[in-house]
Amino acid sequence: MNDSPGRALDPHHARPPVHDLPALLEALRETAAERDRAGGHAAREKQWIADAGLLTLAVPREFGGQGARWHDIYETIRAIASVDSALAHLLGFQCLQVVSVDVWGNDAQRSRYLGGTIENHWWWGNAVNPLDTRLVATATTEGGYRLDGAKGFCSGTRGSQMMTFSAHDAVAGKPVFGVVPTTRAGITVHEDWDPIGQRQTDSGSVSFDNVRVEPHEVLQRSDVPRATLRTLVSQLVLTNLFVGIAQGALDEARRYVLQYGRPWIASGVARAADDPYQLQRFGEMRLKTIAAQALADRAADALDDAWQQGFELAAQQRAQVALATSEAKVFAHRAALDVSEALFDACGARATGAPLALDRFWRNARVHTLHDPLDYRVRDIGRYALEGTLPDVSLYT
Amino acid sequence: MNDSPGRALDPHHARPPVHDLPALLEALRETAAERDRAGGHAAREKQWIADAGLLTLAVPREFGGQGARWHDIYETIRAIASVDSALAHLLGFQCLQVVSVDVWGNDAQRSRYLGGTIENHWWWGNAVNPLDTRLVATATTEGGYRLDGAKGFCSGTRGSQMMTFSAHDAVAGKPVFGVVPTTRAGITVHEDWDPIGQRQTDSGSVSFDNVRVEPHEVLQRSDVPRATLRTLVSQLVLTNLFVGIAQGALDEARRYVLQYGRPWIASGVARAADDPYQLQRFGEMRLKTIAAQALADRAADALDDAWQQGFELAAQQRAQVALATSEAKVFAHRAALDVSEALFDACGARATGAPLALDRFWRNARVHTLHDPLDYRVRDIGRYALEGTLPDVSLYT
Amino acid sequence: MNDSPGRALDPHHARPPVHDLPALLEALRETAAERDRAGGHAAREKQWIADAGLLTLAVPREFGGQGARWHDIYETIRAIASVDSALAHLLGFQCLQVVSVDVWGNDAQRSRYLGGTIENHWWWGNAVNPLDTRLVATATTEGGYRLDGAKGFCSGTRGSQMMTFSAHDAVAGKPVFGVVPTTRAGITVHEDWDPIGQRQTDSGSVSFDNVRVEPHEVLQRSDVPRATLRTLVSQLVLTNLFVGIAQGALDEARRYVLQYGRPWIASGVARAADDPYQLQRFGEMRLKTIAAQALADRAADALDDAWQQGFELAAQQRAQVALATSEAKVFAHRAALDVSEALFDACGARATGAPLALDRFWRNARVHTLHDPLDYRVRDIGRYALEGTLPDVSLYT
Amino acid sequence: MNDSPGRALDPHHARPPVHDLPALLEALRETAAERDRAGGHAAREKQWIADAGLLTLAVPREFGGQGARWHDIYETIRAIASVDSALAHLLGFQCLQVVSVDVWGNDAQRSRYLGGTIENHWWWGNAVNPLDTRLVATATTEGGYRLDGAKGFCSGTRGSQMMTFSAHDAVAGKPVFGVVPTTRAGITVHEDWDPIGQRQTDSGSVSFDNVRVEPHEVLQRSDVPRATLRTLVSQLVLTNLFVGIAQGALDEARRYVLQYGRPWIASGVARAADDPYQLQRFGEMRLKTIAAQALADRAADALDDAWQQGFELAAQQRAQVALATSEAKVFAHRAALDVSEALFDACGARATGAPLALDRFWRNARVHTLHDPLDYRVRDIGRYALEGTLPDVSLYT
Repeated sequence: MNDSPGRALDPHHARPPVHDLPALLEALRETAAERDRAGGHAAREKQWIADAGLLTLAVPREFGGQGARWHDIYETIRAIASVDSALAHLLGFQCLQVVSVDVWGNDAQRSRYLGGTIENHWWWGNAVNPLDTRLVATATTEGGYRLDGAKGFCSGTRGSQMMTFSAHDAVAGKPVFGVVPTTRAGITVHEDWDPIGQRQTDSGSVSFDNVRVEPHEVLQRSDVPRATLRTLVSQLVLTNLFVGIAQGALDEARRYVLQYGRPWIASGVARAADDPYQLQRFGEMRLKTIAAQALADRAADALDDAWQQGFELAAQQRAQVALATSEAKVFAHRAALDVSEALFDACGARATGAPLALDRFWRNARVHTLHDPLDYRVRDIGRYALEGTLPDVSLYT
Repeated sequence: MNDSPGRALDPHHARPPVHDLPALLEALRETAAERDRAGGHAAREKQWIADAGLLTLAVPREFGGQGARWHDIYETIRAIASVDSALAHLLGFQCLQVVSVDVWGNDAQRSRYLGGTIENHWWWGNAVNPLDTRLVATATTEGGYRLDGAKGFCSGTRGSQMMTFSAHDAVAGKPVFGVVPTTRAGITVHEDWDPIGQRQTDSGSVSFDNVRVEPHEVLQRSDVPRATLRTLVSQLVLTNLFVGIAQGALDEARRYVLQYGRPWIASGVARAADDPYQLQRFGEMRLKTIAAQALADRAADALDDAWQQGFELAAQQRAQVALATSEAKVFAHRAALDVSEALFDACGARATGAPLALDRFWRNARVHTLHDPLDYRVRDIGRYALEGTLPDVSLYT
Repeated sequence: MNDSPGRALDPHHARPPVHDLPALLEALRETAAERDRAGGHAAREKQWIADAGLLTLAVPREFGGQGARWHDIYETIRAIASVDSALAHLLGFQCLQVVSVDVWGNDAQRSRYLGGTIENHWWWGNAVNPLDTRLVATATTEGGYRLDGAKGFCSGTRGSQMMTFSAHDAVAGKPVFGVVPTTRAGITVHEDWDPIGQRQTDSGSVSFDNVRVEPHEVLQRSDVPRATLRTLVSQLVLTNLFVGIAQGALDEARRYVLQYGRPWIASGVARAADDPYQLQRFGEMRLKTIAAQALADRAADALDDAWQQGFELAAQQRAQVALATSEAKVFAHRAALDVSEALFDACGARATGAPLALDRFWRNARVHTLHDPLDYRVRDIGRYALEGTLPDVSLYT
Repeated sequence: MNDSPGRALDPHHARPPVHDLPALLEALRETAAERDRAGGHAAREKQWIADAGLLTLAVPREFGGQGARWHDIYETIRAIASVDSALAHLLGFQCLQVVSVDVWGNDAQRSRYLGGTIENHWWWGNAVNPLDTRLVATATTEGGYRLDGAKGFCSGTRGSQMMTFSAHDAVAGKPVFGVVPTTRAGITVHEDWDPIGQRQTDSGSVSFDNVRVEPHEVLQRSDVPRATLRTLVSQLVLTNLFVGIAQGALDEARRYVLQYGRPWIASGVARAADDPYQLQRFGEMRLKTIAAQALADRAADALDDAWQQGFELAAQQRAQVALATSEAKVFAHRAALDVSEALFDACGARATGAPLALDRFWRNARVHTLHDPLDYRVRDIGRYALEGTLPDVSLYT
């Protein structure tokens, strides 16, 4: 795979060549409240994201992708999450499926799927939720499989062209991973995603009825440290969504107070922006947000360093990234919830009109922060603090 | 005050003679999620509340009402709020309008309106939001007024038979209070209440177009301590709504975890109910809830004591009730928000389905806790702690 | 003071007939900083407490004691703790040893020891720390024991006349409880108590060298609910010490700021008492304190109710008191630490002079709040909240 | 150590060439508890710090100093603060006085005082507390001054060879800054520093009786951005002391629990290090500490960038450093207090013996965090968050 002649691996060009990210953000923000209420599928907006060139952020340069640093990818996800954390999730999971193919695929698969992503502007979905064990793979004589069953929480699958899946091969007693086109016969993507937040992540269930998987579509899940970075890529997607939600809530609070804020009758000040408690509140909102940002950046930098080790990456360094990721996730989780709740204390009663949907920040944060319980992250961090034990590789760390 | 012959002041009968409160609670709970989604007017459920005999809780016994202790009234409001804080708000504001007539009305007015509430099972609405100054009263030669303009946040007015109002008499430069039937010509109750929470409080706007107010409908607002207890009655309605929301969120979390809870994969326990962090979470949820309950009870008891002083009530005792009310409100406010957020940490990701609407506790709490900023309550409590200065009579204390 | 035989249990006389408690408090406060620095034994101040008639608060009226309600006893302990939590601890443990004899003693023992406390103004110490298992009891042929070994954390023993003890009878494989005069041959009270706080609780170690215990000195530990209330009496002593520390820290902060407070240069106010953040801080300090008070009162009332059941007390009611006690203790624990830390934010840098010893509130709170970990109380409260399981009888609940 | 004239500014040699910092830390830690109790002057330990080559960290390389990056200087201060925050304060203030001369001195003064620091191993003290206005400067005819009066909180002056001062010239109505040898006739350094924490910072008062200041000893305070960085250098010294205190408290908790920790009787685990709540506590302690570290590093890096601009530094960039410094200070302040309090929850009751002096972390944090109120930092951060207004140059920002 060759990088096209005019596209040198210029390190000063590491930032994604996004076509006017601010304009995209403004456009997404404009309809975010309305789309939150409607739920469902954001076909038009997903096209905008594709048009902005963001689908190829994580595709390595050797396949014509941007091969962006994780630091920069997460900054982009964060920016989008600040206006629409559902669509930011879709973008994050696009990167995650790209990474899945990158770390579990053989050369031919990487070429086919990563090159294909560039060429065909594929959106990727997934059916890999590890806590849902209903999808069964039956080996075929040719080395492929037949899939039967279902998966829930299949983020991004609706409206996607390609998808990853995980299933259980009961005969061999092992998991099976692979890639199939979303349009493959026997696959039905259900429009059953109706949560209280993150309403446009296309995360409904997918059912599989005798779905063919060709031998060349089967990925080989690896446990080398490099491959297990995939889990951390995923966790930092969540982390940066939370950071973005906090940023967005703070930004909406700021705009609202500057535009509509009235000083409280007992405050003795002429402008809402001079209320000492209001200033304190904004101070605390910012403090929570920047701590989450700083730790998320620190984790992203650690991931970038580890990523660059390639298959030489040592387990110990990978575990340090896992620790930094958990630490960032705790702060980001709390910042998202706290800042999105405080948004209302800042704005006051008139900001509770349903059409404004300013509660979407809290609802989005609340839905997404339940992916795995914070308790066990804090416990693992404590174990490191007390005994120096780094987190094990697991589904979530 | 004389109680009618057959109705002795039996202290053992002080609890409201409610017809099966548990059944009412269960019935309200059953449809709460669905009605939260629908918003609008809960005509059927308001009828249930009326049928349960709750409209007359605060009507003095001399007019045939229950003359219940505030402690008991608030306990009832709290119980209803635990399943539906919007309808509990309507009941609380029913009591508040009754009190308004009781403390601002002359004997004839008290007899007409309080007796009428018993006889006709009136639901009371209001148009008295003090921060909305658009409603103008023009004195008529007969001693009455004409009303023109509008009021927002008119809780309970939709579906009511009677309502209180406040307006501004620009000529006399003073406020005017009164009572009118909600059906009075020129009054339009708008169906424009669409907030993110407390969606069935019938709190839309009301417009007045040359609305006649008869002389005998004009109330005389008084500033004697007894009359200013009205504000505290109102603040304790809010406080107990918050307590009820916390109770309800804790109760839903408990039910959900006992029924659906699964232990986290890393927890090492067999039952979700044995997870040490889950138990800690329920412990903290309960602690917040009971502190709010204890302080709300303490304030209600102080109000009952003050209420029994009648017009002999001293300003100092009234101010002590105001302090206790603010103290309770701070705890209740925080408990409602914190417990309704923690509900999700307890229940996990699958509890975020929109049809369950478990986020209604947080949304209800969030909307209602913005009535006035907590900051200035805490400041006033601090002023008392530092200098012994009791809160002044104000719109909120 | 004598409670003549015919003296009725006049409920209006339930408050302890203390000789000028305010004067005692003021006198203790005056020397508290200095005595905190010195540590050691407060012989003079313990005499003041005895002179004020406080040693007999918990002695039943049938033996000539005050038989005060626990509510009132704890209020007294709290008041003393607000100026000196070490001496308040001594008073609390005086009551606890009285209760130990009351619930574990036979009629003759109760008469001898409780009557003796009235007659001889005994201070009681103890050597019953259940986590220290070094003290061995060897049965004698006459039905008594010989004691050998040691106990740590023997609060109140130095300077006492009588003491309770617990030891292990290795032959019978059971614990032994009893009473001995502190001057009994073979008992050595060590002056080895040198902690960072609670410095005058006389809580050093005691060693026993072939100490004789007469048969009539052996108490029979009982597990009937009434007897196990003893543990809750003890836990509420600690709880009310914490409440008193919070009250005292708030009071010192108030005095200091009113006397010495200067507005911060950036505050824009003329008086420190008008600084909005200072008022907020005092508000939060008060809120923490009153919640702890309210829950401590609620638990004391529950204990009083249970206490009055005598030996009819049901295990279920006893367990409800245990729950209420744990709930109060959590709030009191946190209030003591938080308020005593915030004291300095209120007073500023100049309040850190060692001679003022304003850090004694935090140090006292910190030492005493380590008696047992809060974590497991919160867990037990959570277990009740989630499954309705009341706490078991244990060393701490 | 000699920085030979031709020595390039090798970025790979930016770390201070300290002679065995770990050994210094261990030696300081060994006597820290004892010296905390004794208070007073740590002559021996200050010599160790001098011997380790740390006095010249901030002296520019052109004068033979180490010209270390602020990032590295603060890391060293932090490390020392983790074992002894009083001596770390002395080192920090050594750097601060060096900077004062560097930014306010003319070429001759910089050469004399900074070169002199290298040659003579001077410890620097100060008498510049801006809130203490008692020191008066009277101009002499030769262009120098006479000083009369006193200053409090003169950190580092006892045992110093040189000192900076600020005084008020009442005739000219302006402040006067300068340098004098601590032994100058008329200067008396009082041994009156007796606080509850930070007991060996040599921060007593200094009195001046007709003290001569030569013309060449007078510094010219400048308000160019570069010079006002001095305030931020000072604030980041405090910030990093707090970070170091948090690190040290966490480290002592870890050591203690690993060595002495016993599982709580109700925990059901065999090792204290497996208690789920203990792990949670260590997790939270670490999270607070690393957030403070990350933000302190972020601020130090911003300072380094600004510092390298020299006199070209723009006010806007300087203000951004001030903002980052305030943000870091808030986290560090809270981490120091919280972690040093939690240390005891981790270690339990037996860790409260006075000889261990484990409360010194909290006392040190508590004394030092009162330098200026956090409230106004948070307010300023809020003002930036809300209106984009950067902090003004002031005594503290």
